[in-house]
Amino acid sequence: MSRLASLDKPTAQRSASEDRARDVLLTAADLFYRQGFDATSMSEIANAMDLTKAGLYYYTKGKEDLLYKIMDFAMTCVERDIVEPARLIDAPESRLKFVIENHLKAIFDTGGALTILTVESGKLPSGQLQGITDRKRAYLNLVRKTLTELKKLGRLRKLDVNLASLNMFANILGVTRWYQPDGRFSRNRVISETSRFILSALLVDFE
Amino acid sequence: MSRLASLDKPTAQRSASEDRARDVLLTAADLFYRQGFDATSMSEIANAMDLTKAGLYYYTKGKEDLLYKIMDFAMTCVERDIVEPARLIDAPESRLKFVIENHLKAIFDTGGALTILTVESGKLPSGQLQGITDRKRAYLNLVRKTLTELKKLGRLRKLDVNLASLNMFANILGVTRWYQPDGRFSRNRVISETSRFILSALLVDFE
Repeated sequence: MSRLASLDKPTAQRSASEDRARDVLLTAADLFYRQGFDATSMSEIANAMDLTKAGLYYYTKGKEDLLYKIMDFAMTCVERDIVEPARLIDAPESRLKFVIENHLKAIFDTGGALTILTVESGKLPSGQLQGITDRKRAYLNLVRKTLTELKKLGRLRKLDVNLASLNMFANILGVTRWYQPDGRFSRNRVISETSRFILSALLVDFE
Repeated sequence: MSRLASLDKPTAQRSASEDRARDVLLTAADLFYRQGFDATSMSEIANAMDLTKAGLYYYTKGKEDLLYKIMDFAMTCVERDIVEPARLIDAPESRLKFVIENHLKAIFDTGGALTILTVESGKLPSGQLQGITDRKRAYLNLVRKTLTELKKLGRLRKLDVNLASLNMFANILGVTRWYQPDGRFSRNRVISETSRFILSALLVDFE
């Protein structure tokens, strides 16, 4: 079994070795995110982890393998923390709020990994890419379905459901680009203001 | 004088050589945007322009020089087409609409060049970077000032002016990431829906 499997276990259930494997993944994700996949070498990832290059290969077969595992990890987080619990929420307005807030939280919790999902997909072999794309589409479909329900209820503004969902994700993913951890806005402030911005854009008579 | 100067002249006033120089810039911008600055070589830019590498060096001193000229070109477009005419608009709501719509139009007109401005700034020598950063800041200040005026008039929602402007730019710049030229939405549809999305998010009682 891959040493990078099961990284999505809750902290308390992870062994020290699983913690280390998870760190490898998040470190690589951060470097890929900041420098780009092509510009990042295995040596840099090893250095950042205080590992030898041989030590790094204990955890992964190579750079493409790391990229796939990062995306698989990110999708697993999205499914566990956003998609699955959202499906249990009947009221579309509450479901939409849940999705937006929890995606923003996930961005703060998983750093670059979630962003890699949207930026570096072109670098995966097509078989692996297809699996990730299908899982992303299932998430997008949930959002579109939610906006369509709101439209039927007269709660959505005069917006195309597809373009509205693309604009909504531009705001959510945009946070990774402009947020400065040492800036004057706390994580919670950014989450609440960005949620409110999106909900005001989408919903009639919001607040 | 650099052969890449004066690229922001209107089409009718450009010579064939200036047109060619402008193409070099936009081609390089597109490659930097799609592949990243580090992953793009001078040979690839030359190939994409049907030039020899020596032919490409007729137009530029090298990759960093190209990057600077792309950013200078993009900022000149932003200043000429957005910032300067916006300053002449007294009513803050009309000024805001003008800025949003014309920034979206500029994205469609200049391809990757405008996006490079926000993504690859870290690759410039600090002296050149400072000049570009100052010009970007002047634009941001105009947007913040406009939102502050709207706040005083009671037209802005309960939003922090800085976070609101960052979210607004996330929507504008996000279009470059999700828009598919061969998709089913026209350029004009994307501009009008995205403008409406942003204005609904920012303004009380919009539409």
